[in-house]
Amino acid sequence: MLSRSVLHLARFHPSKSVTSRVVHHNWLKVNIRSASYDHGSSSRSQSDNAGDGHAFSTAATVIGGSLLTYLIVKKLKDDSAKVYAKQVVSPTKDIHQAHNELRKDLPVYAMEDIQKHNSPASGIWVTYGIGVYDISSFVPKHPGSDKVMLAAGSAIDPFWHIYQQHNTKEVLTLLESFRIGNLKEDDVISTKDQDNPWAGEPKRHPILRAATERPFNAEPPPSMLVDSFLTPNELFYVRNHLPVPEVDIKEYELDVEVELNGKSKSFKYEDLKKFPKVTVTAAIMCGGNRRGEMMEVKPIKGLPWGPAAVGNAQWSGVRLVDVLKAMGVESDEVSHVQFEGLDTDPTHTPYGASIPLSKAMDPRGDVILAYEMNGQPLNRDHGYPVRVIVPGVVGSRNVKWLGRIIVSKQESGSHWQQNDYKSFSPSTDWDTVDFKSAPAIQNMPVTSAICSPASGEKIKAENGFVTVKGYAWSGGGQEVIRVDLSVDGGNSWIVADLDQVEKNTGRGRHWSWSLWTAKIPVKPGQKLEIWSRAVDDNYNGQPETFKNIWNLRGVVGNAYSRVKVEVK
Amino acid sequence: MLSRSVLHLARFHPSKSVTSRVVHHNWLKVNIRSASYDHGSSSRSQSDNAGDGHAFSTAATVIGGSLLTYLIVKKLKDDSAKVYAKQVVSPTKDIHQAHNELRKDLPVYAMEDIQKHNSPASGIWVTYGIGVYDISSFVPKHPGSDKVMLAAGSAIDPFWHIYQQHNTKEVLTLLESFRIGNLKEDDVISTKDQDNPWAGEPKRHPILRAATERPFNAEPPPSMLVDSFLTPNELFYVRNHLPVPEVDIKEYELDVEVELNGKSKSFKYEDLKKFPKVTVTAAIMCGGNRRGEMMEVKPIKGLPWGPAAVGNAQWSGVRLVDVLKAMGVESDEVSHVQFEGLDTDPTHTPYGASIPLSKAMDPRGDVILAYEMNGQPLNRDHGYPVRVIVPGVVGSRNVKWLGRIIVSKQESGSHWQQNDYKSFSPSTDWDTVDFKSAPAIQNMPVTSAICSPASGEKIKAENGFVTVKGYAWSGGGQEVIRVDLSVDGGNSWIVADLDQVEKNTGRGRHWSWSLWTAKIPVKPGQKLEIWSRAVDDNYNGQPETFKNIWNLRGVVGNAYSRVKVEVK
Repeated sequence: MLSRSVLHLARFHPSKSVTSRVVHHNWLKVNIRSASYDHGSSSRSQSDNAGDGHAFSTAATVIGGSLLTYLIVKKLKDDSAKVYAKQVVSPTKDIHQAHNELRKDLPVYAMEDIQKHNSPASGIWVTYGIGVYDISSFVPKHPGSDKVMLAAGSAIDPFWHIYQQHNTKEVLTLLESFRIGNLKEDDVISTKDQDNPWAGEPKRHPILRAATERPFNAEPPPSMLVDSFLTPNELFYVRNHLPVPEVDIKEYELDVEVELNGKSKSFKYEDLKKFPKVTVTAAIMCGGNRRGEMMEVKPIKGLPWGPAAVGNAQWSGVRLVDVLKAMGVESDEVSHVQFEGLDTDPTHTPYGASIPLSKAMDPRGDVILAYEMNGQPLNRDHGYPVRVIVPGVVGSRNVKWLGRIIVSKQESGSHWQQNDYKSFSPSTDWDTVDFKSAPAIQNMPVTSAICSPASGEKIKAENGFVTVKGYAWSGGGQEVIRVDLSVDGGNSWIVADLDQVEKNTGRGRHWSWSLWTAKIPVKPGQKLEIWSRAVDDNYNGQPETFKNIWNLRGVVGNAYSRVKVEVK
Repeated sequence: MLSRSVLHLARFHPSKSVTSRVVHHNWLKVNIRSASYDHGSSSRSQSDNAGDGHAFSTAATVIGGSLLTYLIVKKLKDDSAKVYAKQVVSPTKDIHQAHNELRKDLPVYAMEDIQKHNSPASGIWVTYGIGVYDISSFVPKHPGSDKVMLAAGSAIDPFWHIYQQHNTKEVLTLLESFRIGNLKEDDVISTKDQDNPWAGEPKRHPILRAATERPFNAEPPPSMLVDSFLTPNELFYVRNHLPVPEVDIKEYELDVEVELNGKSKSFKYEDLKKFPKVTVTAAIMCGGNRRGEMMEVKPIKGLPWGPAAVGNAQWSGVRLVDVLKAMGVESDEVSHVQFEGLDTDPTHTPYGASIPLSKAMDPRGDVILAYEMNGQPLNRDHGYPVRVIVPGVVGSRNVKWLGRIIVSKQESGSHWQQNDYKSFSPSTDWDTVDFKSAPAIQNMPVTSAICSPASGEKIKAENGFVTVKGYAWSGGGQEVIRVDLSVDGGNSWIVADLDQVEKNTGRGRHWSWSLWTAKIPVKPGQKLEIWSRAVDDNYNGQPETFKNIWNLRGVVGNAYSRVKVEVK
């Protein structure tokens, strides 16, 4: 990542000086460079923020496997910004396109440059389209208050995809008045290193908080999740187990093998699309969602997921049952459908998982081979060109980059089916665990999480109330019927409003999450712990504590959500 | 009940004297009689128990609506018992039939007489077939230890149905040696009072602990439940809402009306039996099972059920989907199937409930119109001649004495569907409840209960361990995959053995309960609280406390089971 940004800067800022050195740190060997720049200060059209140029220092440091980069960036002095802002407010200009137009009079920045400007101290930069904007002066005036800070140092595109009230001439004109540069469209990563299996990783939105970069595992800020019933593709959590495969759609084939009747067939992408297209709205949740909370009880080997390893999307594709029926498959109660991804480990073993055949063949099971997500072709992180969507079932069975389907008497023999994504008694440890003793997780249990406010937040009351927001979901197609909140340790409960719920999907086919809001009466200065817990239409609820459901893999962590806050 | 036993005694014991009086107590007007008898003492073949005769006092008292009856019974002196016992051990005699043969040399007793002999102080009597036995001398020597006391004062038939090791010549010969009389086969109840809607109630096994007599609501002792994967019909909990209807099988008709297509048809019993016969093994659980534990948190209007308002049986009958398909019904996601019982309230309104049409029409939903229970025709308390079995779904939708089926766009409008059998937040009270705000309970949540030992019991350790037994079940067809126990407040957990589990029924079709056993290490004199909690294959578990799931109807009470015991 460092070398990318350095290369980028080297290309666009001929005045920079670069020093290279090679650092050996255990297994890690990377080129580290330090660079310094001298730009002029930028001027902006906002009179109250016609600031002088800034000077920043950069350094590159390798600490273990993580990389911290500091770049010296001094903005180019460019008075044309003010001029340009005046131009774009002209009614003859299509303001809707301004952020997609290159401003040759302004410098080009890499996203990593932008990321460094994410606080009042460093200045607050955002990008929109290819525009780069310094919105420092505007942040205190933003009608959506602090929410704008979620985009600080990153792209606002997915935010504005949610908050569509920004899509007006006035807002776009105002934004364009803050323009300070252009975003570099390509990135050095596109110059792929063929020897590095990670060299082909796609670009991700920086809002995704990465628990690991390789494989890429990242979740969005929880407070973003709950403002949109359908999670924007760029904000949808990513859980990869292996490098993202690069698929040439012309070469793509899905092999289907039916061990039960000996038939097999390869489907080209266009062959698959000949089956009827269906759309299913379904949440997908990582089996380790909320593991971070469980880890507070006792350490766990695994990614410390927050509560946002979940998203809700419209998935379009073809019914798996249609494909399997075309292959002569009949349902039974004992067989399985194995899925293999095109992502492989260094031994060329693919990612794999399986689901019961009866789920695949049940027309009410709604299992699809999806090629679209929220109306867009799947992006690479979400399984381009085809993935399985198994509604109600843990994310890990929703195999991405689908390469092979095997209908078999056997479950998938993969590591992830057999020795991972299973839960055990809290007293089972790595010395005593017998993975065969537990079934592979399929349907997920009922859960809820408070997404706003965040734990530790100082919150402002309005008319004596604070607003609490979150999501709730139950696997297996169960509908969430109630979310209760308590701020007094369970002595009394407030019933939340289920304000974004997909209704009338049918018994046991409620695949979407529910979003909820509650108003809690508070007093100034009050410190409180807010609890949430959901109840589904089987009247299953959440267990109270992580202590009693702790398990060595840190999965299915669905205890009460608890957030400690203080009222301003 | 008093008058029944008095009439019985009047018939069989000409030496009795009876005094009648009429007691007016609010709404209650019954004949109260007191009676005294003088029998000779009975002799038994057991040399160590050739006890003298006993004298008992009886009185009849009406307290509110409950009736306590004490009868003076002095056993007839009859030396022939010893002689007869010698006869039956003869190899030429079929000992297996002795308990079904009338001993004309012995007196006849009503079950109510037997019930009074249920302790060492009163003598311990049991019945088997038509035999009446005084087993007082044998109880201390019983290999199954205290368990025999569960049958004290009642019939041992259902017990021996479970404990089939008794079905040997030796045991039957020993039993017959304790014979003191004959059980009256008919009962005064058969002389029905046509003006009393309760006069036609069936006879019940006295082992059923009645929470209310009218309507009859009763559960067996929990420790009985866990010794038999299939609950004997006589021990199966009974939850009636209204008087048990008396059905003449020749007149019986099931009316099926399909509002969706305007078709209707009446099926005679024999018409129904023309559909293919299927058998489904399924637990049925009362929505209020374990309410007694929830009531300890805060009072609830409702029967204080223990953990035994549940049973597991093989139900045979015809698939509802077959009947509905014959009526031209097609499944959809919004319609309902309403059921009406032949049991009616004083306004002639039948008991009613409904389930989603999609459950009824799903071949994997396994809904049947049952006419047999564990291979026997349904008995009257369990819905003779036909009831609905809706596997995985709360007992109250498994409508008994089925008279009418309506396929409709509407749920059942009955009280029990609309304003009962729903759960709410713990802070919802009778002033704030809006029954429309909650869905009618269908699938039940995951639960478990410790059935042995009982709370307060002093238990004996064997080699430093005590054995804990219970059941676990999850509604909606989910399989229980694990039961964990803790005796240290959740700091450590012991995984129970699932020793009686129905395997391979298929995904989401696991309708039976699971029985489990765990051995817990203990120390002499130790006081401990044992917890159990089950986990199903959706990885849903039980909530920890009743406090946080308390609800004003006291339903779906599935918190951890907690039993306090002391080690001897």
